[in-house]
Amino acid sequence: MTVTSFFNRQTPVKFEGEGSTDPLGFRFYDKDRMVMGKRMEDHLRFSAAYWHSFTWPGGDPFGGETFNRPWMHGADPLALARQKADVAFDMFELLDMPFFAFHDVDVAPEGASLKESIANLNAIVEIFEKKMETSKTKLLWGTANLFSNRRFMAGAATNPDPDVFAYACGQVKAAIDATKRLNGANYVCWGGREGYETLLNTNLKRELDQLGRFLSMLVDYKHKIGFNGPILIEPKPKEPTKHQYDYDVATVYGFLERYDLLQDVKVNIEQNHAILAGHSFDHEVRLAYALGIFGSIDINRGDDLLGWDTDQFAMNVGELTLLMHEILKHGGFTTGGMNFDAKIRRQSIDPDDLLIAHVASMDAAARGLLAAEKMLADKALEGPVAARYAGWDEAEGKAVLAGERSLEQVAERALGLNPQPRSGRQEYLEGVLNRYV
Amino acid sequence: MTVTSFFNRQTPVKFEGEGSTDPLGFRFYDKDRMVMGKRMEDHLRFSAAYWHSFTWPGGDPFGGETFNRPWMHGADPLALARQKADVAFDMFELLDMPFFAFHDVDVAPEGASLKESIANLNAIVEIFEKKMETSKTKLLWGTANLFSNRRFMAGAATNPDPDVFAYACGQVKAAIDATKRLNGANYVCWGGREGYETLLNTNLKRELDQLGRFLSMLVDYKHKIGFNGPILIEPKPKEPTKHQYDYDVATVYGFLERYDLLQDVKVNIEQNHAILAGHSFDHEVRLAYALGIFGSIDINRGDDLLGWDTDQFAMNVGELTLLMHEILKHGGFTTGGMNFDAKIRRQSIDPDDLLIAHVASMDAAARGLLAAEKMLADKALEGPVAARYAGWDEAEGKAVLAGERSLEQVAERALGLNPQPRSGRQEYLEGVLNRYV
Amino acid sequence: MTVTSFFNRQTPVKFEGEGSTDPLGFRFYDKDRMVMGKRMEDHLRFSAAYWHSFTWPGGDPFGGETFNRPWMHGADPLALARQKADVAFDMFELLDMPFFAFHDVDVAPEGASLKESIANLNAIVEIFEKKMETSKTKLLWGTANLFSNRRFMAGAATNPDPDVFAYACGQVKAAIDATKRLNGANYVCWGGREGYETLLNTNLKRELDQLGRFLSMLVDYKHKIGFNGPILIEPKPKEPTKHQYDYDVATVYGFLERYDLLQDVKVNIEQNHAILAGHSFDHEVRLAYALGIFGSIDINRGDDLLGWDTDQFAMNVGELTLLMHEILKHGGFTTGGMNFDAKIRRQSIDPDDLLIAHVASMDAAARGLLAAEKMLADKALEGPVAARYAGWDEAEGKAVLAGERSLEQVAERALGLNPQPRSGRQEYLEGVLNRYV
Amino acid sequence: MTVTSFFNRQTPVKFEGEGSTDPLGFRFYDKDRMVMGKRMEDHLRFSAAYWHSFTWPGGDPFGGETFNRPWMHGADPLALARQKADVAFDMFELLDMPFFAFHDVDVAPEGASLKESIANLNAIVEIFEKKMETSKTKLLWGTANLFSNRRFMAGAATNPDPDVFAYACGQVKAAIDATKRLNGANYVCWGGREGYETLLNTNLKRELDQLGRFLSMLVDYKHKIGFNGPILIEPKPKEPTKHQYDYDVATVYGFLERYDLLQDVKVNIEQNHAILAGHSFDHEVRLAYALGIFGSIDINRGDDLLGWDTDQFAMNVGELTLLMHEILKHGGFTTGGMNFDAKIRRQSIDPDDLLIAHVASMDAAARGLLAAEKMLADKALEGPVAARYAGWDEAEGKAVLAGERSLEQVAERALGLNPQPRSGRQEYLEGVLNRYV
Repeated sequence: MTVTSFFNRQTPVKFEGEGSTDPLGFRFYDKDRMVMGKRMEDHLRFSAAYWHSFTWPGGDPFGGETFNRPWMHGADPLALARQKADVAFDMFELLDMPFFAFHDVDVAPEGASLKESIANLNAIVEIFEKKMETSKTKLLWGTANLFSNRRFMAGAATNPDPDVFAYACGQVKAAIDATKRLNGANYVCWGGREGYETLLNTNLKRELDQLGRFLSMLVDYKHKIGFNGPILIEPKPKEPTKHQYDYDVATVYGFLERYDLLQDVKVNIEQNHAILAGHSFDHEVRLAYALGIFGSIDINRGDDLLGWDTDQFAMNVGELTLLMHEILKHGGFTTGGMNFDAKIRRQSIDPDDLLIAHVASMDAAARGLLAAEKMLADKALEGPVAARYAGWDEAEGKAVLAGERSLEQVAERALGLNPQPRSGRQEYLEGVLNRYV
Repeated sequence: MTVTSFFNRQTPVKFEGEGSTDPLGFRFYDKDRMVMGKRMEDHLRFSAAYWHSFTWPGGDPFGGETFNRPWMHGADPLALARQKADVAFDMFELLDMPFFAFHDVDVAPEGASLKESIANLNAIVEIFEKKMETSKTKLLWGTANLFSNRRFMAGAATNPDPDVFAYACGQVKAAIDATKRLNGANYVCWGGREGYETLLNTNLKRELDQLGRFLSMLVDYKHKIGFNGPILIEPKPKEPTKHQYDYDVATVYGFLERYDLLQDVKVNIEQNHAILAGHSFDHEVRLAYALGIFGSIDINRGDDLLGWDTDQFAMNVGELTLLMHEILKHGGFTTGGMNFDAKIRRQSIDPDDLLIAHVASMDAAARGLLAAEKMLADKALEGPVAARYAGWDEAEGKAVLAGERSLEQVAERALGLNPQPRSGRQEYLEGVLNRYV
Repeated sequence: MTVTSFFNRQTPVKFEGEGSTDPLGFRFYDKDRMVMGKRMEDHLRFSAAYWHSFTWPGGDPFGGETFNRPWMHGADPLALARQKADVAFDMFELLDMPFFAFHDVDVAPEGASLKESIANLNAIVEIFEKKMETSKTKLLWGTANLFSNRRFMAGAATNPDPDVFAYACGQVKAAIDATKRLNGANYVCWGGREGYETLLNTNLKRELDQLGRFLSMLVDYKHKIGFNGPILIEPKPKEPTKHQYDYDVATVYGFLERYDLLQDVKVNIEQNHAILAGHSFDHEVRLAYALGIFGSIDINRGDDLLGWDTDQFAMNVGELTLLMHEILKHGGFTTGGMNFDAKIRRQSIDPDDLLIAHVASMDAAARGLLAAEKMLADKALEGPVAARYAGWDEAEGKAVLAGERSLEQVAERALGLNPQPRSGRQEYLEGVLNRYV
Repeated sequence: MTVTSFFNRQTPVKFEGEGSTDPLGFRFYDKDRMVMGKRMEDHLRFSAAYWHSFTWPGGDPFGGETFNRPWMHGADPLALARQKADVAFDMFELLDMPFFAFHDVDVAPEGASLKESIANLNAIVEIFEKKMETSKTKLLWGTANLFSNRRFMAGAATNPDPDVFAYACGQVKAAIDATKRLNGANYVCWGGREGYETLLNTNLKRELDQLGRFLSMLVDYKHKIGFNGPILIEPKPKEPTKHQYDYDVATVYGFLERYDLLQDVKVNIEQNHAILAGHSFDHEVRLAYALGIFGSIDINRGDDLLGWDTDQFAMNVGELTLLMHEILKHGGFTTGGMNFDAKIRRQSIDPDDLLIAHVASMDAAARGLLAAEKMLADKALEGPVAARYAGWDEAEGKAVLAGERSLEQVAERALGLNPQPRSGRQEYLEGVLNRYV
């Protein structure tokens, strides 16, 4: 296979069983194993992320590049982009990765004008197209980077300057065109600069309206070109800005209601973004299902004790079990998947680190899937929860929920009641969970 | 006036001018001074909160009562409640307080049954009615405490047991009846237990539906009895529970949209709750105005470095200036006001501490009002903001916002653009703000 | 055995093996199993905490009692204290608990004077003495509660009033006397009010000196009475106060250095306190070992997304594995143990919840111990770490560390160097850890 | 004066009085005004920071350069460094700045070897020397950047590789040599990478010893070359790493005790670092004075609701008043000063923004100084605090603090005591503070 010499390894990572101690062998991810009627690979729908793995040089606010990747230094940006694509598809093959995801500027260099940038993008998309004829790896989603270039420093759709809004339209049109061309399953919007640094200079209401308009135009366009996948908004509360309008799932839901976008737009939920907003990952996923806007997952983990997006590889089997439990309960992914929006630490400078990180995290997720399957089979959590709310399934409870009772009626009934609390059994359920993890 | 001997002072606190060093004299709060066409008192609409000042004994999770108030110890709960009412109206008079607010259980003892609790409440309401005939102090809002009694440990409207839901209906009906009887300007709901401790035992979707139903029943009842004020939801993200459904303004907005309650329900915003949700107070207020759900304010302050509700008296003139700037910009309060949901520190055990705290905070707010008035007159912030977004007021910007442009049209126009970023001038505006504070 | 009817169960919880689904059976905690040469029970040295399990009524800042324990309501405080002691020793027996721990006011009611309080304490200590003649359960540590009574609202040792300091001396003397009488292995100080609410009224330097003096007096007394165990300070950064002087392990270390207490005082580390201070549990434990002040563990867990002490039962096997790895690496506990400073949720109102919580957490810790044993045997972490620092074990590295090189000498040597970074292999090690957990 | 055309302005900013609305005029900073016997300029000792103002391009983790400074793009690094120096000294003159501060790599490009880097540094230092002959601006401190280059990704002094430690020695020797040559008043160490990303790969104890050794070598060298100023450690808890060893003032104190460095090393305290560690700025400053290690200030502000170092210009007059109150109380700065470790927002792209930000912040600090002067004159805080602790100044209190009482003696005395709590008067003191701010 390998057209590049970046990785030392030439053959795809394989399932080796739980006893394996090979960091480049799967212990739990056995792609063809059937789980609740579907192959494991079709459940987990893993996706590699182009940006962290191939575009980020290892810098942070206090230090520069550590990775020194060969495709990051050279005179001809398009040639480097092609070299990067080769390495990327190598990695996809080595990891037997079913999907990938990208931003426009990850894959192709920005040009001196919008026109040139689009041409560059299309040149690489053509290469992708060719590669994807033989590769198993499909496109989970594409997106446009509307936050890195200084023209977007005050926002893209929410910029005070309508010309910047227009520029963003140009970029996003090209990105969704590219995504459609590559048969992407979804199109994602992350509004990294759609927020503010200070309210002192901000017209918040105007900016929300701008953002609503932008999304509406994108939805119209999606229908026009017959792009079948959903538009996904990726909530994040803050960073890079002080406040981002797509704060969390609940906020995005209200926004979609307000601008009448619920039919076409869903959410792409990331663990690290969830905790930065003060929520558990499980909460955000559950809420998205409850509100009918669950779309896809950016799988990673933040550090609970740090206040920024660390985007580490997900390794917490307990958390992943609850995630998979929720997703399985709702029948599994439709267009969505589990995209590794995760970066190896800037000290993980060896090429193998990139493979090892994906393997370890895929295994943790597979382990979570298997635990969740068993929990559902045993109704380990679903049983106790159903019992706890059983009262609401009886006649009076149903009548109340159906709107057949007025406040006075219920208040009248209450005069004869003296309801006693029942144990919430939290520690029991935590113990149960530990039996499966 | 004084019917009790709790406070040492017998005469209301007066405006004494900026030079005063008397902790029981106002330096800025000059109630009859005209501000943008309205008396200062009518702008600020201060309200004393019954619970923190008269019902909280000074305890915290690691220690008990410190205040030893005379009305907290005795054999006859109703007699103590009457004594408490006397002291409360004394304080209202000493502070020349235009409004107050209460929970049902603050003012009257809970009885052995719902019926008895309601009778107790009504007995005190009758006393309030009489007092209010001669007192200037009006009722800003009433509410029901659906979180302290152990029956509500797993929620009121969101309880797994429909009988607890019913009990909550009984209590809330009595509380809004009492609020109407006392001509309350608003009715408030704070869902302190409407959330969860662990998702392991929680049916999140079901609970949201229960909460939506509860609010809808309350809204119907409000119309039926002709209660004119709005229902106000008070957002809070967490504490006492791990997660509360009324997380923040954006979350409440989505909830109101979902359950079709936008016509009748608005928000009561608290500073400390805002920062616990990761937002500035100013943000929450602005957002509420932008979404059309601004109702009222619970004025206090949290400690930015602590993770719980400290409910301290608001003393930050800068923050209060931005608050008043926002409120004045929108024409001032309608039914809302500034309710002191603030408690003196548990070490502030002298009766005077209660008066001094209110006076100092009222003064800080008055100072904020005066600064905001001047800033608006000078267009100190409004001018630069309008200039920053001027492009959107031109033809093309307007057309985009009006929905008259498609993504393709704008993207096509963008091909000829190379928009340049302009300074956000944050430090300049911060310096400007410092000129007024 | 059982002298009370509080628990439904009459026989101690037993080891049932990994396959058990009984919430009142151990799956991993097999007390006689040998681990690195010692019985599991002797490694883990579990201790039940009197306060959370028997004294806390289930209240929080927004709601009152939920548990309604029989020994919490009655006319005769000493009789209730005896009843509580019976239930406590029942629980110790049902859980086969090797240790327990208490505060003075947990076990006996405060009297009208210090003298009476001490007499009450001694009356219960006498009962404990008798019970402990036949019970296997020993005393891990005793302590004095110097934070709940209003006299301590501004601190105990750090109170602005030297009479309060004196009162604290009286209480602590009685508590350490009682601890010695019961052959306690350690004596603990938690300075819940040794800090401040606001710096505006605080003489920080004076208070630190007061605290230093207090500890020195206690150390002197300990030697005088021949109490052999160490004094343990329990670090906590905040809550109830805004700032507590025993912020974290590093702060306590500096304090012990400053007041020359390193010989006699060590730390009792709690997970929830660690994360409130911004540290991982593992960090605090490692640091305490590195600084030579490791003493004991308060085993519980906080919620990473909440800003207060939730004191939940520890259930995270991964975290417990790293804890046990650290402790085993240093040869295991000496006088310390794992005290369950954990409370069941206030909704866990059934007596069984109390047992279930302990069993589940003991099992999680036992699982951590077994995983740690295996990791140490395999040098799973220790191997890679040693390799990473190998350079410092060579001649030049050793010379530098030994102080045999000056800055100029090393700087001179550096002129010829161009050291290249090596991978930190974080994801590899995380994958390794997942193999054991 | 101006040798460059970067700033539009040619004349220094002047004191214009409180009524001025000129963003480039001082309203409070009147350098020759006498405050407690010293010129205002000599009290505040402002210092401009080379890195944020001249070296940072406006990037953040999600976007690149926004400032496009002319000296950041070009073929000849040393020529650009000279151009940068010209602009820097222009700014110093325009702001009438008494001090500046720099890292080695801010002022001169890194070379291909350590030798070349040192040569580059010395070339620029020579230019500085010449400029400083005529400029009023002195050097507050110099430092070495031991965190940006990839060789330091795993730490400098705490690197697992002793050759990296050596390289750091080489760099720090050159930096302190340069600082001495320029008559710097202090030498600073900020250990941005002296910490860890994960404990899994870290020998914490070894790294602490390495750091202790490094500092000891530096102290020895400082004495040898006769550098008179102190070494200052700048505490920061985290970012870029997960944990930094110089976490906060208390941690640094313990470290200095441990490695016997208290005589020669003090702290340089930054507001933003303080709040990232969970402390108020005021706390850190007070604690440093209490422990005898106060050195200097990095003046800036963080955002209380964000979890990373935003390094904004300090504008909060209340906070600055408390800072100056503390510093004045202790007699003012000795070698230290107020260094603007603050960066204009990345959207503040106009050259004037750089001047405006400094002017607004200098004014805020001057206002704080004037308020603090008045508070001290009135004993506004000092009076009540002294009264609160008065008991400790009486015979028995003094005897206890002097070590003349044993625990038993004091406990015995306590038997006759029933001390009553007294109000902490927090709200009163907050109101007092508001009278001055």
